[in-house]
Amino acid sequence: MPDSFFHPVSGFELPRFAGVPTFMRLPLVDLDNPRIRDVRIGIIGAPWDGGTTNRPGPRHGPRQLRDLSTMIRAQNGATGVRPFELVNCADLGDVGPNPASVDDSLKRMTAFYDRVVAAGIMPLTAGGDHLCSLPILRSLAKDGSVGMIHFDSHTDLYKSYFGGMQYTHGTPFRRAVEEGLLDPKRVIQIGIRGTAYDNEDREFADSAGVRVVPIEEFHARGPEDVMAEARDIVGERETYVSYDIDFVDPAFAPGTGTPEVGGPNSFQALQVARLLDGVNIIGADLVEVSPPFDPSGATAFLGVSVMFEMLCNMALSVADRH
Amino acid sequence: MPDSFFHPVSGFELPRFAGVPTFMRLPLVDLDNPRIRDVRIGIIGAPWDGGTTNRPGPRHGPRQLRDLSTMIRAQNGATGVRPFELVNCADLGDVGPNPASVDDSLKRMTAFYDRVVAAGIMPLTAGGDHLCSLPILRSLAKDGSVGMIHFDSHTDLYKSYFGGMQYTHGTPFRRAVEEGLLDPKRVIQIGIRGTAYDNEDREFADSAGVRVVPIEEFHARGPEDVMAEARDIVGERETYVSYDIDFVDPAFAPGTGTPEVGGPNSFQALQVARLLDGVNIIGADLVEVSPPFDPSGATAFLGVSVMFEMLCNMALSVADRH
Amino acid sequence: MPDSFFHPVSGFELPRFAGVPTFMRLPLVDLDNPRIRDVRIGIIGAPWDGGTTNRPGPRHGPRQLRDLSTMIRAQNGATGVRPFELVNCADLGDVGPNPASVDDSLKRMTAFYDRVVAAGIMPLTAGGDHLCSLPILRSLAKDGSVGMIHFDSHTDLYKSYFGGMQYTHGTPFRRAVEEGLLDPKRVIQIGIRGTAYDNEDREFADSAGVRVVPIEEFHARGPEDVMAEARDIVGERETYVSYDIDFVDPAFAPGTGTPEVGGPNSFQALQVARLLDGVNIIGADLVEVSPPFDPSGATAFLGVSVMFEMLCNMALSVADRH
Amino acid sequence: MPDSFFHPVSGFELPRFAGVPTFMRLPLVDLDNPRIRDVRIGIIGAPWDGGTTNRPGPRHGPRQLRDLSTMIRAQNGATGVRPFELVNCADLGDVGPNPASVDDSLKRMTAFYDRVVAAGIMPLTAGGDHLCSLPILRSLAKDGSVGMIHFDSHTDLYKSYFGGMQYTHGTPFRRAVEEGLLDPKRVIQIGIRGTAYDNEDREFADSAGVRVVPIEEFHARGPEDVMAEARDIVGERETYVSYDIDFVDPAFAPGTGTPEVGGPNSFQALQVARLLDGVNIIGADLVEVSPPFDPSGATAFLGVSVMFEMLCNMALSVADRH
Amino acid sequence: MPDSFFHPVSGFELPRFAGVPTFMRLPLVDLDNPRIRDVRIGIIGAPWDGGTTNRPGPRHGPRQLRDLSTMIRAQNGATGVRPFELVNCADLGDVGPNPASVDDSLKRMTAFYDRVVAAGIMPLTAGGDHLCSLPILRSLAKDGSVGMIHFDSHTDLYKSYFGGMQYTHGTPFRRAVEEGLLDPKRVIQIGIRGTAYDNEDREFADSAGVRVVPIEEFHARGPEDVMAEARDIVGERETYVSYDIDFVDPAFAPGTGTPEVGGPNSFQALQVARLLDGVNIIGADLVEVSPPFDPSGATAFLGVSVMFEMLCNMALSVADRH
Amino acid sequence: MPDSFFHPVSGFELPRFAGVPTFMRLPLVDLDNPRIRDVRIGIIGAPWDGGTTNRPGPRHGPRQLRDLSTMIRAQNGATGVRPFELVNCADLGDVGPNPASVDDSLKRMTAFYDRVVAAGIMPLTAGGDHLCSLPILRSLAKDGSVGMIHFDSHTDLYKSYFGGMQYTHGTPFRRAVEEGLLDPKRVIQIGIRGTAYDNEDREFADSAGVRVVPIEEFHARGPEDVMAEARDIVGERETYVSYDIDFVDPAFAPGTGTPEVGGPNSFQALQVARLLDGVNIIGADLVEVSPPFDPSGATAFLGVSVMFEMLCNMALSVADRH
Repeated sequence: MPDSFFHPVSGFELPRFAGVPTFMRLPLVDLDNPRIRDVRIGIIGAPWDGGTTNRPGPRHGPRQLRDLSTMIRAQNGATGVRPFELVNCADLGDVGPNPASVDDSLKRMTAFYDRVVAAGIMPLTAGGDHLCSLPILRSLAKDGSVGMIHFDSHTDLYKSYFGGMQYTHGTPFRRAVEEGLLDPKRVIQIGIRGTAYDNEDREFADSAGVRVVPIEEFHARGPEDVMAEARDIVGERETYVSYDIDFVDPAFAPGTGTPEVGGPNSFQALQVARLLDGVNIIGADLVEVSPPFDPSGATAFLGVSVMFEMLCNMALSVADRH
Repeated sequence: MPDSFFHPVSGFELPRFAGVPTFMRLPLVDLDNPRIRDVRIGIIGAPWDGGTTNRPGPRHGPRQLRDLSTMIRAQNGATGVRPFELVNCADLGDVGPNPASVDDSLKRMTAFYDRVVAAGIMPLTAGGDHLCSLPILRSLAKDGSVGMIHFDSHTDLYKSYFGGMQYTHGTPFRRAVEEGLLDPKRVIQIGIRGTAYDNEDREFADSAGVRVVPIEEFHARGPEDVMAEARDIVGERETYVSYDIDFVDPAFAPGTGTPEVGGPNSFQALQVARLLDGVNIIGADLVEVSPPFDPSGATAFLGVSVMFEMLCNMALSVADRH
Repeated sequence: MPDSFFHPVSGFELPRFAGVPTFMRLPLVDLDNPRIRDVRIGIIGAPWDGGTTNRPGPRHGPRQLRDLSTMIRAQNGATGVRPFELVNCADLGDVGPNPASVDDSLKRMTAFYDRVVAAGIMPLTAGGDHLCSLPILRSLAKDGSVGMIHFDSHTDLYKSYFGGMQYTHGTPFRRAVEEGLLDPKRVIQIGIRGTAYDNEDREFADSAGVRVVPIEEFHARGPEDVMAEARDIVGERETYVSYDIDFVDPAFAPGTGTPEVGGPNSFQALQVARLLDGVNIIGADLVEVSPPFDPSGATAFLGVSVMFEMLCNMALSVADRH
Repeated sequence: MPDSFFHPVSGFELPRFAGVPTFMRLPLVDLDNPRIRDVRIGIIGAPWDGGTTNRPGPRHGPRQLRDLSTMIRAQNGATGVRPFELVNCADLGDVGPNPASVDDSLKRMTAFYDRVVAAGIMPLTAGGDHLCSLPILRSLAKDGSVGMIHFDSHTDLYKSYFGGMQYTHGTPFRRAVEEGLLDPKRVIQIGIRGTAYDNEDREFADSAGVRVVPIEEFHARGPEDVMAEARDIVGERETYVSYDIDFVDPAFAPGTGTPEVGGPNSFQALQVARLLDGVNIIGADLVEVSPPFDPSGATAFLGVSVMFEMLCNMALSVADRH
Repeated sequence: MPDSFFHPVSGFELPRFAGVPTFMRLPLVDLDNPRIRDVRIGIIGAPWDGGTTNRPGPRHGPRQLRDLSTMIRAQNGATGVRPFELVNCADLGDVGPNPASVDDSLKRMTAFYDRVVAAGIMPLTAGGDHLCSLPILRSLAKDGSVGMIHFDSHTDLYKSYFGGMQYTHGTPFRRAVEEGLLDPKRVIQIGIRGTAYDNEDREFADSAGVRVVPIEEFHARGPEDVMAEARDIVGERETYVSYDIDFVDPAFAPGTGTPEVGGPNSFQALQVARLLDGVNIIGADLVEVSPPFDPSGATAFLGVSVMFEMLCNMALSVADRH
Repeated sequence: MPDSFFHPVSGFELPRFAGVPTFMRLPLVDLDNPRIRDVRIGIIGAPWDGGTTNRPGPRHGPRQLRDLSTMIRAQNGATGVRPFELVNCADLGDVGPNPASVDDSLKRMTAFYDRVVAAGIMPLTAGGDHLCSLPILRSLAKDGSVGMIHFDSHTDLYKSYFGGMQYTHGTPFRRAVEEGLLDPKRVIQIGIRGTAYDNEDREFADSAGVRVVPIEEFHARGPEDVMAEARDIVGERETYVSYDIDFVDPAFAPGTGTPEVGGPNSFQALQVARLLDGVNIIGADLVEVSPPFDPSGATAFLGVSVMFEMLCNMALSVADRH
């Protein structure tokens, strides 16, 4: 049972639109704060889009996601889970990137997550573009490769971009497999669609053993069936969850840089996150929310709603272990 | 057969974007107009959001709904019903609230609807926030409790808000049950979802006998099945219909103050209103359209499309009786 | 196998947001260009909305569609088709309308398409409003009536508008049937919905033998079944495909002048175009994208995604014949 | 002193955002209404943009201008004039155009204004595009040419457009001079700017005696000096005032089809209208507000603020005569 | 010289778009924080618009103002003042209103500001609507009336609204004069404009001795001259500064509920705040920023730029005294 | 006299909203096109924002600037200059950046401009962010330092950013001075304003001899006087003109990443470019237009209007020499 320090501010005390916006109205506990040792799940902003090769903007994601997250109340409407009563959660602030250097940013991020991991905190990250997942995995999978359930319209498995560039938001999981951070046989990618340059990413997936569920299959089988397979693939071992908001159809999530039409609706977007229950999650992220392309905040609100579903499963999982 | 005075202006005479916008291009007949005695269904604007505790704006709803309503033509595309030929319909103008006083506004509204009821007119109201339903019910259910089919993502059954506040858009139906305006056993709430503060509303619903259909059940069963149950629950007796636009998924209806993701799509939004056929409707409302959050008018257009479906069923029901 | 002159610019050479935007980054080959004789499929802009009687704007459609089309890559994600390797495709530029004269514009358009047809080029047109389809059909069906698969929320079969006006975006297919350009028994209209003035269009459809699939039927049967019937109706003979973006639900395609709620989602929007495979397509259009009502470009991006699906089927069909 | 029937609804009785929006909350008195004989100034909507050759939309102007006009209160803040107490004003509704025919629309408009003039009512028109001014002048100047003070960034004096088209929003005043409706020596055009095709319009102005004040001169001399000259040029005889909202800089009035940067600010926009005092105004218009390019309504609010300034001067002028 | 605890986060350490947004990146020090005793200037959010009678939204102001305030750097570009090095500044968080009760909100606010005043902290408030100024003045002027420099397009001096309502955003300074909080002879209101219901407010101003500078006078004399008079009027005694963002022209500040065209530009908006130097400021506010009417944040950015100018003068004034 | 190949498409032949958008409707002549040898002024897009440390987006600038540039007609309204008749102008397409590498992009750009310079073409560049000016200067000033007239709200003279980063949009002119590309004594920066981190840039300017005109001075002296000084400072020798759109007030140019309030209006924005007449211009740029922050295109339209003013002066200057 978490102590009251970690309870989010109630909307019946201070209206939900009021107050300095932290993630889900949780206390802000940075890594130097003494209370950090009591945190079990840390929500972290990664305001960085240095890997973006198309429309930019996810660097502004954490700010807008925090803003909209104050609309999230304490209890899951569908499952009844009250995560903040299960485990101590906190907003750990933003990991500071270097907007003028990809390399330095990658280093800064891994250094930050190393401290998070060392403190025994499970990270839930709000991106940022998808390249952010790489330095996070470098910290989380330091001691051996992990599995991954990956929601996206793109595989992000390309070898390189634009004449050999290794680090973009289209390549993180190719790097992660190469670096031994991900066990490709325990990786499933769901929702893949859109036009393609070529098959280089899919051929890599096939040869490495990554399971790709294209959107046609997703729509034909439905979320329950696909997620049952996903849980099977990752099994009981450690698993990372990476959720690119462009997994969802752009009518529901317009605020992203590389939208692809024909995706799941918002109910399915929540459903797949809810169906992560039982997965041995060691960390998760929600990436590619690009506020300049949705000043209304609708995309960010869907994003934090998905984050809350993931958080509930993470909290259940943490609570089980203790 | 209504007289031609009550026919809406045709788009083949005056383009639909032209002219002073009244609801569905009907004549404006205020309560002091002698023709009021010939009106059977009155569409009324309730430009009031004094009960709104989160993002404001529904006070601007009637203006935008009227604007978009001129795009509605005379015949239902799905059912072929031509309501304006079945029964005299008119725009009764706006009920004037007091923007600086909740109490005075509630009184003004009930006084207005008392006159509407006394004139034998069935009201179809365009809100305004959901607190508007309370003064309407006070007029309509003066002589005994009625049933209600309620589309929403929230139950609006909370006891109070923010330290005992009794009258907000989160409490109208708790008040209506307490005041004997609603028979809780003849009330069904459809589409409930989103995070929650606690279970206080749901526990009240359970104990009072209000049937709550959460969105998960709605998606699993489908509109036809759920609406069959709804018709069963309200039976043949008098029934009010209250339709909060946030019932619909925010991708289809972004212009509202407290959106919750994961809702029905626009086809289902129309379908449930169409499936009210046979219900003994005594009045209906469409509330919580907040134009500042959707200047495009898309939400309002969906709103008036739903209003037209409800109107068709109201007209059939009125015509049957005469 | 097309020569490299007709390959689109790759996003790995020049970022997709860069460069002068031609349709799908193809070479711009106007009718006076010597390379025109090597073109098999020509994408043409028709920046004209002289037939629009409600909210205007499709004159700006081609500009925005070209802009967004540079996001389309070379390969169909679902089918693997690479159209630009099957057949020489080019952007033929815009057909120039006279914005101050409906009659002159109709003449200019037919003159342009006569040259396209004479050059043996199959046209894929980006509108413009739906009246654009009429002059195109006048060129394509010069030697005998053709069939048509028509996606729309309106039949566009009205006799006239506003006191006898023959040429508006609500009448093109009535004219086309009257002029013998369309064989009504080989015409199917899919997705029809929304309120109606009267039944005049539907009665004409019934008497002439045009098959109308209302949206209720579409949702009940699903895209595969409806498209199987469509392929049956048009058979193996020459068929035109006309796709009004307002076929799709306005949440997915808000940028259009006469939206009707309750339509298909974006996955179904692509699916129906994909299910045109095997149809003997002689030309196609995507019309009624109105950028002023969607500056974000989301509607245009869906529009070009649909165009790409149609193009893939056109390319397969052309490749088959050679 | 006008009778109370003609008093606008007060914001202290019904909030200004409430109620069916008529111009400045005046009574709606159409030409068939018996009270029409008591009206001295009639505000009229002209929802027509059939003359627009660039970005369309002014057909939607009257609707948005009425909406925003309910924010106008009864008294001029700068001059203290209370026009509605000086003279009976009313909203005469919209003149119905034929959206599919330029010629028919011109006829319908002149027929409407002939009735207005016959009823002794001074018209203040809310456009619509600038071609609307021509049919109005045909009614107002039936018995002899009038003078004109014209605010605009374009002269609208071109001979024809696009191969001989006589009737577009770039040609109305050329026609009006040719038809003897305007006395070119009593015409002044203020604010002219932007790039030009050629000097054809300016050469006509020079040869006919129309005074053109380019924006550079306006900024150098200031509104007072320029307006003194304007009053001089038109003298004491009958004068029409035509105000194109694109006279104002697009930062203040973005909602228009052919903006030109470098214009007056909003204070100057009001000032020039205020400085019409003493001019013998026989009618005025405010045209080219295009709501699709400014859904926020800011342009329309500036537009109605300018209309109110003109109305005050019109009311003073009417009151003086009686 | 303030200690480093109170230095804002530098954009060279953490990019300005990153991090949890506090006002000007200052530390968040709530009233229960032990460091509160070292704060000299406290920036406070007042997320309340319970007094708004027209378009609502300022309750969302503090959130957006904080967001944009992270773009403010440490040094005044015009004057070179570095306020955070002169005096300890902090973000004191939001004063919590009761969104369902005007009376309770007024009490909560005064209670909060009483504590601020007791702690010897000079408040700079980000509203909220203009009624917020009343409870602040009740705390600040507890011991005797103060002077006020008031920038606005409205006097906010009305006696009541809508049938006797005493507390709205149109009445705060009438109340403040009646309650002896303001010395009317030391009050100047600058920028007044727009249409008016009547002269009731101006007559009160005249009789009480409040100096009103209408916008015409402001534009004629210029900011320097007007501000010299303002400094004269308030003299050396204690003075409150109240800055309604609708003082500025809506082209520069569209995000407000009751805009009036014809106002100052953004340079003048800064200039008048800069020309407060030497005034004995005891507190200031910036009110009526309404984010729903400007999601872009441009209004809020102008608002925080004005706040920074006021803060510099407040810091100079505090530093002088110590 | 240029040959007709280089005449822009007239709006009387093809409406200005139609056609594939090249800069000012000029022919697209890439560097490999044989006609390149006849081009004297080349307009070039630089779709790159790799130096942006705050809000991103200028990579999308050239696309939107081209789109809006088709609204520019052939003749300068103020000066009568017809640049396309003075000298052969063409759109040279976009210089291709590498969105994943700052270093590679700088190299690609210089390589491109080296070819432009070698071909004897004077470049007018549409950015892109301000770092783009550096590789351009590396090509243009290869043989010796040049002067510069620089319009901006920032000096862009910082030594480095964020821990030593040398190449960002805040440092290009520091680099250019260090590399001997700019003669600091012949550099003037006009419009500088906004808050600052420190004085490091200004101290460098002072010590190097760069003349900085802060916005206060600009407003006090006016454009004519300041530009007279600018012409004096650069004298008759070769001069580059760099125009950051954030020089203009954000009400007129909201679409930029680092706006600063209090700037010039749009008339002054044009005026300063017009007052470049007589300057020995060797190249010019217009940078920092960021379309995601202004989808309306208003900023881009102002941008291309400024570009046209610069182009007119460049054309006069080229014509003079031949």
